[in-house]
Amino acid sequence: MHRFGAILIVSGPSGAGKSSLIKAAKNQIGEYYFSISTTTRAPREGEKDGVDYFFVDHETFEADIKAGEFLEYAQVHGNYYGTSLKPVREALEAGKLVIFDIDVQGHAIARERMGDLITSVFVTTPSLSELERRLKSRGTDDEEIVKKRIQNALVEIEYVTAYDFLIVNDDFEKAVDSFIAVAKAARLKKGRKQALSFVNRWRES
Amino acid sequence: MHRFGAILIVSGPSGAGKSSLIKAAKNQIGEYYFSISTTTRAPREGEKDGVDYFFVDHETFEADIKAGEFLEYAQVHGNYYGTSLKPVREALEAGKLVIFDIDVQGHAIARERMGDLITSVFVTTPSLSELERRLKSRGTDDEEIVKKRIQNALVEIEYVTAYDFLIVNDDFEKAVDSFIAVAKAARLKKGRKQALSFVNRWRES
Repeated sequence: MHRFGAILIVSGPSGAGKSSLIKAAKNQIGEYYFSISTTTRAPREGEKDGVDYFFVDHETFEADIKAGEFLEYAQVHGNYYGTSLKPVREALEAGKLVIFDIDVQGHAIARERMGDLITSVFVTTPSLSELERRLKSRGTDDEEIVKKRIQNALVEIEYVTAYDFLIVNDDFEKAVDSFIAVAKAARLKKGRKQALSFVNRWRES
Repeated sequence: MHRFGAILIVSGPSGAGKSSLIKAAKNQIGEYYFSISTTTRAPREGEKDGVDYFFVDHETFEADIKAGEFLEYAQVHGNYYGTSLKPVREALEAGKLVIFDIDVQGHAIARERMGDLITSVFVTTPSLSELERRLKSRGTDDEEIVKKRIQNALVEIEYVTAYDFLIVNDDFEKAVDSFIAVAKAARLKKGRKQALSFVNRWRES
């Protein structure tokens, strides 16, 4: 079979443990490309270009919008954030699994544009109160931001039904095992074009 | 979360290795119920009621059809074959993963009736010629039946795009690993009703 990748979308409230899951699973799910967002906001201390974000200026970002180079983008507090398609295309063509950590709106847009390549999973805590506890205990956000994250979570949770799979991150080891299974399964997703070309080759060989 | 199961549908040409995969994976995918078909045909030597099939008479089968007790059924060479819903419902309510080994038509009907609970995987050989080789080498079918199975395979393969995942059973160990991943992922599928009830409980706890 020609190598062609697939896409795994991971969404869920901030504080549910998406990053920890991906980190814990990363050596057990084969080669993947973790999609990095592009932004016009200034790098914070310790953030690196091409690792945390692709940092670009306003003009570059807007030129890329016009060129159709973004899967999705949004303006937040005057800064652009978006998902560039070019590195995604390259990773897919190299046969990699592309992992997106995006919100429910990004998921909806990606579904529309390349739904046949996508497996999606929603990660959440067992309860709202547990989410609040985790956000407060990690101590990285002030009270105002915690409140905002909780408000967002209450909206995001409504979209669970739009996802293929749900991981309730209660027992972390179990959640990692589940995440590995979903990522391995996601690799077995065949886009429409790839599936049809497989069928043609299958019949003739 | 209330225990409620999910469904994994496995399809693919006869000879592609579905049964071997399920058998090899069965101790690594947790508790499941393997859906057994109901039929009016006579048991063959060694076949057991409740293991290979539920064997019933014509009248019972037709009464169950009228009662809406079948997910799907078909008449083949004068005998009925069908999937009874009762054991499936019971297994789902017990929180089990229900595994169906059914054909592409059965898959289409199941999708229509309970698609929100279903993860599906199509299993095939790397090529048509390899399928033919395997069918001939297992030596259980005479030439006429092998020909018939090949004809069916050429139709079934067209339905690959209707499935969530594709397993090309080339390297058996890899195929088993893939199957385990798909089965574990399938467990994380939440039916619409279960997802909405999860969301309600999540917000209030």
